[in-house]
Amino acid sequence: MAKVIIIMGSDSDLPQMKAAADILDELGVDYDLHVSSAHRTPDRTHAVVAEGEREGAGVFIAAAGGAAHLAGVVASATTLPVIGVPIATAFMGGLDSLLSTVQMPPGIPVATVSVGGAKNAGILAAQILSLRDETIREKLIAYRRKMADTVKAKDEKLASLGAAAYLEQKK
Amino acid sequence: MAKVIIIMGSDSDLPQMKAAADILDELGVDYDLHVSSAHRTPDRTHAVVAEGEREGAGVFIAAAGGAAHLAGVVASATTLPVIGVPIATAFMGGLDSLLSTVQMPPGIPVATVSVGGAKNAGILAAQILSLRDETIREKLIAYRRKMADTVKAKDEKLASLGAAAYLEQKK
Amino acid sequence: MAKVIIIMGSDSDLPQMKAAADILDELGVDYDLHVSSAHRTPDRTHAVVAEGEREGAGVFIAAAGGAAHLAGVVASATTLPVIGVPIATAFMGGLDSLLSTVQMPPGIPVATVSVGGAKNAGILAAQILSLRDETIREKLIAYRRKMADTVKAKDEKLASLGAAAYLEQKK
Amino acid sequence: MAKVIIIMGSDSDLPQMKAAADILDELGVDYDLHVSSAHRTPDRTHAVVAEGEREGAGVFIAAAGGAAHLAGVVASATTLPVIGVPIATAFMGGLDSLLSTVQMPPGIPVATVSVGGAKNAGILAAQILSLRDETIREKLIAYRRKMADTVKAKDEKLASLGAAAYLEQKK
Amino acid sequence: MAKVIIIMGSDSDLPQMKAAADILDELGVDYDLHVSSAHRTPDRTHAVVAEGEREGAGVFIAAAGGAAHLAGVVASATTLPVIGVPIATAFMGGLDSLLSTVQMPPGIPVATVSVGGAKNAGILAAQILSLRDETIREKLIAYRRKMADTVKAKDEKLASLGAAAYLEQKK
Amino acid sequence: MAKVIIIMGSDSDLPQMKAAADILDELGVDYDLHVSSAHRTPDRTHAVVAEGEREGAGVFIAAAGGAAHLAGVVASATTLPVIGVPIATAFMGGLDSLLSTVQMPPGIPVATVSVGGAKNAGILAAQILSLRDETIREKLIAYRRKMADTVKAKDEKLASLGAAAYLEQKK
Amino acid sequence: MAKVIIIMGSDSDLPQMKAAADILDELGVDYDLHVSSAHRTPDRTHAVVAEGEREGAGVFIAAAGGAAHLAGVVASATTLPVIGVPIATAFMGGLDSLLSTVQMPPGIPVATVSVGGAKNAGILAAQILSLRDETIREKLIAYRRKMADTVKAKDEKLASLGAAAYLEQKK
Amino acid sequence: MAKVIIIMGSDSDLPQMKAAADILDELGVDYDLHVSSAHRTPDRTHAVVAEGEREGAGVFIAAAGGAAHLAGVVASATTLPVIGVPIATAFMGGLDSLLSTVQMPPGIPVATVSVGGAKNAGILAAQILSLRDETIREKLIAYRRKMADTVKAKDEKLASLGAAAYLEQKK
Repeated sequence: MAKVIIIMGSDSDLPQMKAAADILDELGVDYDLHVSSAHRTPDRTHAVVAEGEREGAGVFIAAAGGAAHLAGVVASATTLPVIGVPIATAFMGGLDSLLSTVQMPPGIPVATVSVGGAKNAGILAAQILSLRDETIREKLIAYRRKMADTVKAKDEKLASLGAAAYLEQKK
Repeated sequence: MAKVIIIMGSDSDLPQMKAAADILDELGVDYDLHVSSAHRTPDRTHAVVAEGEREGAGVFIAAAGGAAHLAGVVASATTLPVIGVPIATAFMGGLDSLLSTVQMPPGIPVATVSVGGAKNAGILAAQILSLRDETIREKLIAYRRKMADTVKAKDEKLASLGAAAYLEQKK
Repeated sequence: MAKVIIIMGSDSDLPQMKAAADILDELGVDYDLHVSSAHRTPDRTHAVVAEGEREGAGVFIAAAGGAAHLAGVVASATTLPVIGVPIATAFMGGLDSLLSTVQMPPGIPVATVSVGGAKNAGILAAQILSLRDETIREKLIAYRRKMADTVKAKDEKLASLGAAAYLEQKK
Repeated sequence: MAKVIIIMGSDSDLPQMKAAADILDELGVDYDLHVSSAHRTPDRTHAVVAEGEREGAGVFIAAAGGAAHLAGVVASATTLPVIGVPIATAFMGGLDSLLSTVQMPPGIPVATVSVGGAKNAGILAAQILSLRDETIREKLIAYRRKMADTVKAKDEKLASLGAAAYLEQKK
Repeated sequence: MAKVIIIMGSDSDLPQMKAAADILDELGVDYDLHVSSAHRTPDRTHAVVAEGEREGAGVFIAAAGGAAHLAGVVASATTLPVIGVPIATAFMGGLDSLLSTVQMPPGIPVATVSVGGAKNAGILAAQILSLRDETIREKLIAYRRKMADTVKAKDEKLASLGAAAYLEQKK
Repeated sequence: MAKVIIIMGSDSDLPQMKAAADILDELGVDYDLHVSSAHRTPDRTHAVVAEGEREGAGVFIAAAGGAAHLAGVVASATTLPVIGVPIATAFMGGLDSLLSTVQMPPGIPVATVSVGGAKNAGILAAQILSLRDETIREKLIAYRRKMADTVKAKDEKLASLGAAAYLEQKK
Repeated sequence: MAKVIIIMGSDSDLPQMKAAADILDELGVDYDLHVSSAHRTPDRTHAVVAEGEREGAGVFIAAAGGAAHLAGVVASATTLPVIGVPIATAFMGGLDSLLSTVQMPPGIPVATVSVGGAKNAGILAAQILSLRDETIREKLIAYRRKMADTVKAKDEKLASLGAAAYLEQKK
Repeated sequence: MAKVIIIMGSDSDLPQMKAAADILDELGVDYDLHVSSAHRTPDRTHAVVAEGEREGAGVFIAAAGGAAHLAGVVASATTLPVIGVPIATAFMGGLDSLLSTVQMPPGIPVATVSVGGAKNAGILAAQILSLRDETIREKLIAYRRKMADTVKAKDEKLASLGAAAYLEQKK
């Protein structure tokens, strides 16, 4: 089975990016985690991509903040799909990270998820790999159903308890 | 071979979205084109998605502007990967379309490309399908090489002509 | 009397949306509260709207954050007035929620209130229902008068105490 | 039947606001059109609101650009629902108009539609009046159906013609 | 001597607006403080302006947040200079307040200071009144000199202590 | 009578700033026009301010675009009131000019008008000078009345003609 | 003498970037012009930088738009100063280009000039090289003086002609 | 050896700007630190620049927030390279500081680094001075290598520990 290569520009992104790893674990998808910077270790980043391709990677996830070039650098080094996660910054809530990741020029796309969307990056990677792995697809469908059930259970609980008691219970 | 389902919220998006169709043609990927609105024809949109799944779609591309919900609505109806194309508007250059497309909640990702990035949506769809189709992968690699050659040819021409003559020739 | 159906995309919105419920209580307007997501439970959302219509709903209030499609999805499923409440996010103070809610395409309006404007959503719903219910109208007029009296009382207190003592008393 | 009072801050807004009048004509809703400024004719604006209330207005629509206070001033003078239309400006695509209209303080809501959303303001006004007028409701349902049919016809035409021929025909 | 009328839309603005009062005290300028809302007490606001004019006001300062119409409403009711203070909000750092205050239409200016610029509003009011009151002008010049001396003293202290010791002393 | 010194950073601002001169002419206020840049001719700018002060200036108007420092530089060189006009740029509609002009630090205010608000800068200057010149005040009141009459005439014309005929006549 | 290496991401940037070349010509500074993309020709970009270093480059200028990574990629490959020129796009006036260029992480600076600031990039490059080349410094001082003289000449002409005649002559 | 003159608009910027001083210490570059405001002490600021030039300064670093004119004022007073550091504010994360610093008019560049980028300002200054000082250049190369080694060590540690243990150790 193809695996996912997750690269983050700094180990300060790890607490957020762990959510990508966790959902991939839950969906039964294999992955590697790397810290490698577009700017501080450009050679290493290219090496990680090349090695990933050799070892059968199917998708890359790249996460960075500010002038967030990591996903673009990865995308320039492979024709495999690359998912970009803009990491939130103190600047306009991460608008810098978002625009640096998503506004790629014609020819080199980055599949961008929401600011801080590590979990969704993991799910999207699994969706892509599910095209050739029926097991992942079934897990995605089950996961989707579980999410829906959770929302419905909350709706029923709210109907039976009312807002005040519901909030009281959540504390 | 899996095909790509391209849905746009309005036929006014067609001139832009044709670029997605054209690159898929160039890369040898099959696709269907649909006009269906998240808001004006929600049932039709769900029907297009369901029909697409039945007919073996591998990826969806959804393009819309303003409060651009189309990609999100498609993503809520399938576990296949969904690529969102924010269509440029007169409002802050399409910031409304971009944020409405990319800022999806945990659980339902949309793989967002740049504002107006129809061509990149097509390439990304091909990248995803290339995971199980070596022919597409080879075409992507050739396409990437051709792009690089074009840039290099321009660089050499600029070196030999100088800026003034280069600009003169481009007229 | 027609009632108001309040739908929020997540129960994490409940602490804010309770303000809508509270002001409707104060204005003597009946309402139902639901948790249902545009993306995680699209079918349920449509069912809540259909059921609301059958049970005599007059207005819908829909609250969501990020790529906030909930109000638009509700509006696509009814011709009753739909009020949208953009929930504040960490991203540019909720600009994503605001634009996703307000920038609806021609044909499907959403009556958008301010970011986090749950209370105003409740008042607006009451204003709409007051068109066919004189009691609500009278309560709205009384409420408006009470607000004005509160401001005037503060103005007089400030005039008599001065700024320093006023601030001291507020502590 | 209650009518709609449309007020615009300047007659330069009339070309856009005519779309509100046109859709109200189509939906069989009566309306008055006024030019009155929040800043240049504050007394007149209050007089227009008071006169509208006396003559049985059910909803106000107020349209202005820049520091767009008109809807807020109207809302401060009535407890009837007030719909605000932010008029596009050269400044960030009308972000000034949008924020000045939508970000109202607790107690005084303005039901804001999209930047330049004159048509949607008319539809929203009709939706509100439809609560006590079954004829309007039926016209809204018919209008919604017609919109859907138009989209579906375009989708079928695109399927039969293909993108190139479709675009050729549209010229 | 003409006085300054300071109006704020809510007593929650008082902690910030006290800075305007304090600097006016320091510069020997008389002022009145009012709480009056553009939206909740429009009549009161007009009355405060009219009364201020009768009692010899020379300048108005109006402070509000969000869809900050207060300064505009005051400016529409007088031809005296009106200074607007945009109060910071959680939304994009107060961009809503700033644009609602500054983007006034031709004919009705508001002299806008920075977001949260209560102190500068007081100084600007004093500068305006200094045109006919030499005492205020002298105090402004002295105040300016004192500010410059403070900066210079800090610069000298930094030169003699170095950064580390300077920061240590500031603790 | 005190005069107004209008300084613009570039003669490309003159077509816009002429509106300030024109309204000052209309209101019977004397003024001087200067081209002087904060960055290209800092000495000249200081000299213009000093000369203005010597010759009895009462107010300065400074207009610039981009990193618009001109008003701030003028304000740092005088304690007279300084009005800043942010000139529109291609960048976010002039947000750069607006923020560079309005966000002044404590101690040095700039009375900022809207982006491109040359006319309002002239009116505000006249309002300030009217504090010691009754003739200007009367002209301001007459001007305000004339503006209101113009709006009212348009409102009556719209009422008698209807929207279609009104627009036809305006062509 | 060290030369300047100007790299642009696309030959569509050449009409703008020619201004950098022109001012370098005027200031007597040698330069090379290249078209090379961060994403389409990453290897070529690294080769251009390495070759530039070998041939004695003193400064790099890199210009790109959108997710503008070119300057960052160049900066990651050299310790020489790198000047970034954000190319204007249709998106928020080039905010994407600006943030992608300027918001670099600690360790790898890019000296960013204004959006579209090709001329200033050339001047800044000359300023840097002037540190070891007195001739360039003298040319910069002369250029600065000439700019000041041009502004002063315009100011005098405006004083003698008045605004109307000045504008007439400029036509 | 040429030194760096660091000027900050307020001593409240010192905690951030100390990072520029620290990296210059590490790279063996001499510097002076000043507090001097563009607006409160314009004369002093010009004097600091003139004195710096006399004493052999090679580069200026200027840091300010809000309507951040300091770097522009310094750049208008010298033809040496000037690096601008936009200090973060509560307003849109420092967008005001960034635009006021970077959007300089043609002729007077400011080499702008990221919001809060004091460290990068120091590195950029060293890069500029390294053009005529081989020792600095060597230290820059060593510093770059050390940064890369740190990233690589983290990557290896993450590979050997896994995400959970890595995060545990970082606590």
